[in-house]
Amino acid sequence: MREYRVLIIGFGNVGQAFFELLNLKKHLLGINFIVTGIIDRSRGLISNPSPGVISEAHTGKLLGKKVVLDQIPGFIEESNADIVCEFTDLNIKDKGEPAFTYLSTALRSGKHVITTNKGPVAFHYDELMELSRKYNRLIRFKGTVMAGTPSFNILDLLPGTRVEYFMGILNGTTNYILTRMYEGLTFDEALREAQELGYAEADPSLDIDGVDPALKAVILSRVIGWRHRFEDVEVQGIRDVDVKRHGDRVIKLIAHANADRVYVKPIPLERGNILANVSRNLNALTLKLDTLGEITVVGPGAGRMETAQAALTDLMYIVNHVNYLGR
Amino acid sequence: MREYRVLIIGFGNVGQAFFELLNLKKHLLGINFIVTGIIDRSRGLISNPSPGVISEAHTGKLLGKKVVLDQIPGFIEESNADIVCEFTDLNIKDKGEPAFTYLSTALRSGKHVITTNKGPVAFHYDELMELSRKYNRLIRFKGTVMAGTPSFNILDLLPGTRVEYFMGILNGTTNYILTRMYEGLTFDEALREAQELGYAEADPSLDIDGVDPALKAVILSRVIGWRHRFEDVEVQGIRDVDVKRHGDRVIKLIAHANADRVYVKPIPLERGNILANVSRNLNALTLKLDTLGEITVVGPGAGRMETAQAALTDLMYIVNHVNYLGR
Repeated sequence: MREYRVLIIGFGNVGQAFFELLNLKKHLLGINFIVTGIIDRSRGLISNPSPGVISEAHTGKLLGKKVVLDQIPGFIEESNADIVCEFTDLNIKDKGEPAFTYLSTALRSGKHVITTNKGPVAFHYDELMELSRKYNRLIRFKGTVMAGTPSFNILDLLPGTRVEYFMGILNGTTNYILTRMYEGLTFDEALREAQELGYAEADPSLDIDGVDPALKAVILSRVIGWRHRFEDVEVQGIRDVDVKRHGDRVIKLIAHANADRVYVKPIPLERGNILANVSRNLNALTLKLDTLGEITVVGPGAGRMETAQAALTDLMYIVNHVNYLGR
Repeated sequence: MREYRVLIIGFGNVGQAFFELLNLKKHLLGINFIVTGIIDRSRGLISNPSPGVISEAHTGKLLGKKVVLDQIPGFIEESNADIVCEFTDLNIKDKGEPAFTYLSTALRSGKHVITTNKGPVAFHYDELMELSRKYNRLIRFKGTVMAGTPSFNILDLLPGTRVEYFMGILNGTTNYILTRMYEGLTFDEALREAQELGYAEADPSLDIDGVDPALKAVILSRVIGWRHRFEDVEVQGIRDVDVKRHGDRVIKLIAHANADRVYVKPIPLERGNILANVSRNLNALTLKLDTLGEITVVGPGAGRMETAQAALTDLMYIVNHVNYLGR
C-alpha cells in the first residue's frame, strides 16, 4: 500500500474531523496516510499522534509540546511530511496571514499543500500559484468554497467548456437567516436562533455583511480565470433586507461574477428559479457554460465533516496526480 | 501536440455535434484529435473526413462508401483508431445490439471506447467491464445519464464517500409534460406540444412509460456498485398522473435506488424539495452521501451539443488516464 506522510496545522473542528475521516477511510481508499504531526496554537505540537488523540482534542487544552506561533514555519520546514494540511482560522485583517506563510513555507520546502482557509487563497492567489509552479508541488483548496460539495472542481468534469458567468448562494448563515425571515421571524430573531444553533458566530458580520461570500466569489473567479480581487467585489449584505417587499419573489444573498464584474448582493429571485428554493443552510452554485447552458450544484457549504471531506478530496487528488517515486 | 485517432460510429445528431465540438475545442484542449473515419448506416463509410463533411450530414444521404450493417464490426476491427466513439440508436428489443457488438469488437481489437447509448451499458454492463479489464482498455459512457451534465461522474470528486441512495428526475420529456400539465394543459395537449418541439418522439412510450429513466437508474446503480438489472426496476410511467389530486405537492417522475431496491414512479414532492422545482426539460440527480448528506446536480439531460459534451468529457478522461506511449 502506498504511503504518504501528512502534517496537520490547526486542530480545531475541521482539523479533528479530517483526522477522524482519514483514519476512517484510508483502508477504503487503499492508501496508508500517516499523520506525522499535528501543530495547534493551543493544543501544541503533537508528534506521531495516535488515533486516540482525538478524544481530548475538543477541550482545546495542551496535548503536546507547547508552541509559540513564530515557531510554526520552522516546524513545517523541518517536517518530513509529503503533504501539509492547513486548517487555521480565517484572518482578513492580516490578509490571510499567518496561513499564507505556513503554505508558502511548505511549498518552498518541497511539500504539497491543502487548505480550507479562504484567506491565503483569496489574498495571495498569484503568489501561491507561482510557488506551486516553481517548486513543482500542488496546492489544493476545495474546502474554501462550499466545503466538500463540488463547486469549482466540477469544471474538472467539463473539459473544453467556457464559463460565461456564475451565480450562487455561498453563505449558509445568511441563507438560514433569510429562510427563517420568510417563515415569519424578524432579522434579529433569526440571527439569534442561528447563533444558538451554531450557524453564526458571536460576531456574525463576515456573514451578514457579505464578506465571506465575497472571498469565495474571488476564489471561484480566479479558478475560472477571471482576475478579480477582493477589492473589486461590490458587496452588500443582508442587514437591510425587507422580505415582504418583493411580492412572490424570494430574496437570496447572491454572489455573481463574469469576466467583467463580481458582486455579492441580495437579489429577489422568481419562485421558479432553482436557487430560490435552496433553503436553510444549503449552498448552491450555478455555472452558465457554452455547451450545456446552466448547471447547478446544491449541497452543504460548511460543517466539520463536510469541510473535512473537501480536504480528503484534495488529498486524493494529490495522490492521483503525483508520480509516487518522484513525489 | 499529442495525437489520438478517433473512429465515429453513428453520424446522426449526436455524432455530428461531437464532430463539430472536437474541431471547435481541440486547440483549446491542446490535443490533436484526428477523426480517421465515420461509419453510419445511411451516410456510409467516410474515410479521413474533412471538417466540411458536416455541411451535408444533416440530410442523411450517402456521403461515403455504402455500408451493410454486418460489415461494421469488421471495419472497427481493421481500423487503426485509438478510440471508438459509438453514437448509434438505442435498441431495447435487441438488448443493446448491435451497439454491444461494436463496443466489444473495439475493445477486443485494442481500442478504448466511448458510448452515449444506454442499451449496451444497461444490458451488458458486466461483459463490458470484463472486456475492458481483459484488454486493458477504457470504456466510458457519461452520455448515457444526463448528457454532459455531471451525474455519476460527480463521485470522482467525492473520494471515500458512501452513497446511501440516489433519487432523480432523469427524463426531460416527461418532466416537460408534467410541468406543462401544472401550467394547465391536459396530458394529451402537453405531449403533442412536446412532440412539436422535438422533446418527444413520434412513439414517446420509452419516456412516458418510464423505460428511459429505468435504464439510466440501472446504469447509475451499477456505477455505484449496486447490482440491479433492468428486470429489477419497478417501473410506473406518467400515463395516469392526476396533477390536481395532491394539494400543494408537485408530482415528478422519480428514479430512486439504494442497495436493495430500484424504482421509477411518479412521486408527489413537497414544494420545498429542490427536485420539486426542477422544471421543463431539466434533469436532476440527488445523492445521499455519508459525509455530506444530500447533494444535488441540476442541468440538461439531453440535446445534441449537451450529449456531445459528455463524449468530449469521456475523451479527455481517456487522454488523461492512458500512458501516451503505452496506449
